[in-house]
Amino acid sequence: MTRTNPIELTASEAARKIRAGLLTSTELVKACLARIDETDGQLKAWAHVDAERALAQAADADAMRQAGRPLGALHGVPVGLKDIIDTKDAPTERGSAIFKGRKPGEDAVVVQRLLEAGTVILGKTKTTELAFVHATDTVNPHNADRTPGGSSSGSAAAVAAYQVPLALGTQTNGSVIRPASFCGTYGFKPTRGIISRTGVLQTSVSLDQIGVFARSAEDVAALGDALNGYDQRDAMSYPRPRPRILEGYISEPPVEPVLAWIDLPFADRLSEASKAGFEELLDSLGGRVERIEAHPSLAQMVDTQRIIHEYEICLHLKQTFDEHWGDISSTLQPIVERGRTISTAQYEDALGQMKSAEEFFSAFLKDYDAILTPSAAGEAPALGPTTGDPIFCTLWTLAGLPCLSMPLMVGETGLPIGVQLVGAQEQDDRLLRTSRWLLSRLQAETAS
Amino acid sequence: MTRTNPIELTASEAARKIRAGLLTSTELVKACLARIDETDGQLKAWAHVDAERALAQAADADAMRQAGRPLGALHGVPVGLKDIIDTKDAPTERGSAIFKGRKPGEDAVVVQRLLEAGTVILGKTKTTELAFVHATDTVNPHNADRTPGGSSSGSAAAVAAYQVPLALGTQTNGSVIRPASFCGTYGFKPTRGIISRTGVLQTSVSLDQIGVFARSAEDVAALGDALNGYDQRDAMSYPRPRPRILEGYISEPPVEPVLAWIDLPFADRLSEASKAGFEELLDSLGGRVERIEAHPSLAQMVDTQRIIHEYEICLHLKQTFDEHWGDISSTLQPIVERGRTISTAQYEDALGQMKSAEEFFSAFLKDYDAILTPSAAGEAPALGPTTGDPIFCTLWTLAGLPCLSMPLMVGETGLPIGVQLVGAQEQDDRLLRTSRWLLSRLQAETAS
Repeated sequence: MTRTNPIELTASEAARKIRAGLLTSTELVKACLARIDETDGQLKAWAHVDAERALAQAADADAMRQAGRPLGALHGVPVGLKDIIDTKDAPTERGSAIFKGRKPGEDAVVVQRLLEAGTVILGKTKTTELAFVHATDTVNPHNADRTPGGSSSGSAAAVAAYQVPLALGTQTNGSVIRPASFCGTYGFKPTRGIISRTGVLQTSVSLDQIGVFARSAEDVAALGDALNGYDQRDAMSYPRPRPRILEGYISEPPVEPVLAWIDLPFADRLSEASKAGFEELLDSLGGRVERIEAHPSLAQMVDTQRIIHEYEICLHLKQTFDEHWGDISSTLQPIVERGRTISTAQYEDALGQMKSAEEFFSAFLKDYDAILTPSAAGEAPALGPTTGDPIFCTLWTLAGLPCLSMPLMVGETGLPIGVQLVGAQEQDDRLLRTSRWLLSRLQAETAS
Repeated sequence: MTRTNPIELTASEAARKIRAGLLTSTELVKACLARIDETDGQLKAWAHVDAERALAQAADADAMRQAGRPLGALHGVPVGLKDIIDTKDAPTERGSAIFKGRKPGEDAVVVQRLLEAGTVILGKTKTTELAFVHATDTVNPHNADRTPGGSSSGSAAAVAAYQVPLALGTQTNGSVIRPASFCGTYGFKPTRGIISRTGVLQTSVSLDQIGVFARSAEDVAALGDALNGYDQRDAMSYPRPRPRILEGYISEPPVEPVLAWIDLPFADRLSEASKAGFEELLDSLGGRVERIEAHPSLAQMVDTQRIIHEYEICLHLKQTFDEHWGDISSTLQPIVERGRTISTAQYEDALGQMKSAEEFFSAFLKDYDAILTPSAAGEAPALGPTTGDPIFCTLWTLAGLPCLSMPLMVGETGLPIGVQLVGAQEQDDRLLRTSRWLLSRLQAETAS
C-alpha cells in the first residue's frame, strides 16, 4: 500500500485525518516545507517561511489533540498569508523595499482567527508592490514564463503548486479571483464586510476585501467560516449574523438553481479559447442559465471602481508616496499621479455610484442564484510588469458581492481557466451551494 | 389554547420559535420591556434601558428572517449587559457617580459578538460600585429585603425576574456564581481567557472574567459559544481553539462521571440548611462523588486572590482613586487603602501562587469530571453595604476554572441555593456535559 504524500490532501481532508489520528500536523507541515524547499527556487511564491516556528505550532496542535483538548475546524492545517497581512512573529513587507524588515507588533484579526481555528502559519506569500499593479517575481506553477496573476501572486501559486493547502489573499479589483484562475486553484472572495481587515495593509477602505485560495470548494467554505466575524474597527464590517458558508456548501438547493450570464460590454477582451469554452458551458447548462444583455450602467462601473481605488490609495498611502517616491515602481507611479488628480467631488460621486451598483445587483440577484462569468480574460499572460487584466472581477468587487473562481476549463496551451460564480451580498452560503450543484451537474454531463 | 407569555421562554426556546416563525423578536422584546416596566420600580435591576433602540434592533432581526438572511445562534433574543461593559450607543456608568453619563465610543468585543449572534441589546444592568464590594440598590427578586448578590447584581436579578432571558456579568472573585445562586438562575463563568474583556472595565487583569446568566444550562452554553474567541488585545486571551460548549452540553458522557467534593477549610461558613442540603445531595449521588480532604495549600489561595485583586485594582484605577477619592464609597475606601500597602514583591509572589493553583487543579482534575461545591454560603443575606460572602468562588476564580451554578436547592426561608460545578481549564464543554448528567441523575432520583 503506497501512502499518499500529505501535500496532495485538501485542507478539509487533512483536518479530518489529523482529527482521526491518521496524520499529524507535524507530518503535514514537514511535507509542505520539503515541497517548498524543492520547488520555491523556481516558483518564488514565498517572501518568508519560518520553518522552526511552523513546526513548533504543529507540535502544539498535535499535543492538543493527544491531550484531548479542543480542536479547531482546520486543526493542524498549514496556511500561507499574503505579505500585506500583519503577523507579530514574522516580517510583513508588503512587496516593497520601503517596508523591508517591517515587523508589526500585532497579528491581524484574520491571523487571530486562524490561530483560533487551529491552523499553522507557514509563512508569508509574495504580493505585487503594495498589493497593486507592479508584479513580484513569482511565476506561474504551470508555466514559468507566465504570470501567476496578482496581486495575491504567491498565495495562488503556493496553493496550486501543493506547497500549502490554504492561503489568504486580498482583492481590491481582481487580486484573488484572477490569480486563482491563472494558477488553477479555487479562489473565494466573500461578501464585503464579512471578514475583518484590521491589521491588513489598507489600499482602499471601500474596496479592499479578504479572500482565500484552496484546492477545493469545501476548503474555501471552511476557511471563510473560520475567518469571518464582526469587527467594529473595520469601517466596512457589519454588525449582523454571518452566513454559515460550509453548511451552505453541503446543503441541497431547494429547487434547481438558475444562473445568469451577462453579455458584458468588455467581452471582446476574452481569449478565443475562453469564448469557445464558455459558449460550450452555456450550451451544456441549457435552460439553467439565462443569457442577459448588459445594463448600460455596467460599463460605467469599471470607471467607478478605478476612481475609488486610485483616490483612496493616494489618501491612505500619502505618507509612503510622499516620503519614498523614489522607491515606487514606474508601473505604479503614473497610477498614483492620475489618482492625485481625482477631485473629492469625483470621488464622492463614485461612492454614490458604488452604492447604486450594490442596489442594482441586489435587485438583479433576486431572480438568480448566481451570475456565471469568466474569472479572467483567458490563460495567464506572459510575465511582465503587471499581472494581467482584472476586468472580469471589477464589477463584482465594486458591488461587494461574493465571488468564487473554480478551475474548470483549460485554455489554448493547456493552462487553467477559471469559471466564476458571483452571488448576492451576504449569501455566501447560497453561492457555495450553487457551486456544488454546478460541479455535479457538469460531472453528470461529462459522464453521460 | 392559552398562549405562553414569551418572557417565560428560555433563550434557546425563544430562538427556536423565532427561527421557526412562531414568535417575533419584536413580540419578545416588547414583552420583556413590559415586564421591566411592571417590576423594575421595586427590583431596580436596570441602570439604562433603551426601549426604542432595542425595538429597532428587534425589527431588524425580524426583517432579516423574513428576507431569508443569515440568522444568528441567538437570533432576536434580548440580552442585558452589566453596566461595566462598554456600548457605543448607551452610557456605561460602572455603578459609580464618577462615571455618570460616561459614553464610550466603542462596543466591547463581547457586544460585537452579541450583535453577530443576532441578539438584541436591551440595556445595562446595575453593578456594585466599580464591580467590587459596595452594593447597588437592586433587590433580590424573591425577597425585596435580601441582596441579589453582586457584583453583577442587576444581571442576575433581571434574568431571575423574567425581565430578560440572558445577561452578561463579570467575576473577579464570586460576582457571577454568587448572584446566580442568590437569585436562582444558572450562572456560568467560563475558563479564564476564553472570552475577550476588551471594552470591559478592568479591575484585575489577572482575575476579571466574563460570565453569563440564564434560566437553563443550554442557554449559558449557547451564550458561552457566542461570546468566546481569541483577542490579542486581551492579555489573558489565549491563541488556541475553543471548546464547543453547547456541543458538549448535548453530548453523552463516554463513561458515567465522577465528581469530587472537597471538604473546604472555610466550610464552617456554610448555613445549616446548605450543609444539610449538600449532605443529602452527596448521599444521593453515592459512589459518583468522592469526598476529599482539602489540600493545605487551599486556605492560602484565598489570600492570594485578595492580594492580586486589591493590588491590581489600585494599579488599574489609580487615576480614578487619585482624582475622585471623595466619590469612592466608605465600603471600598479601606480595601483600596489596604491594597496600596501591598508590595510589588508580595504581588509577584501571589502571581506565582496563582500559577501554582492552576497547576494544582489541572493535575487534580485529571481524576474527576468536576468538583461539586456550594455556589455561596447559603441563602441571600439581608440588604446591606455589601452583597454577601464570595468565599465559595474564590479558589476557582483564582485558578481560572470554568464554574457553573445551578439553582437546585432551597434554603431555610425558601430562597434559592446554587449547586456549583467546577471543571478543568478549557474543558467548559465537558463541564456542561457533566451538569446535564448531574441534572438527569437527580431527576431520576426524585422520580424513583
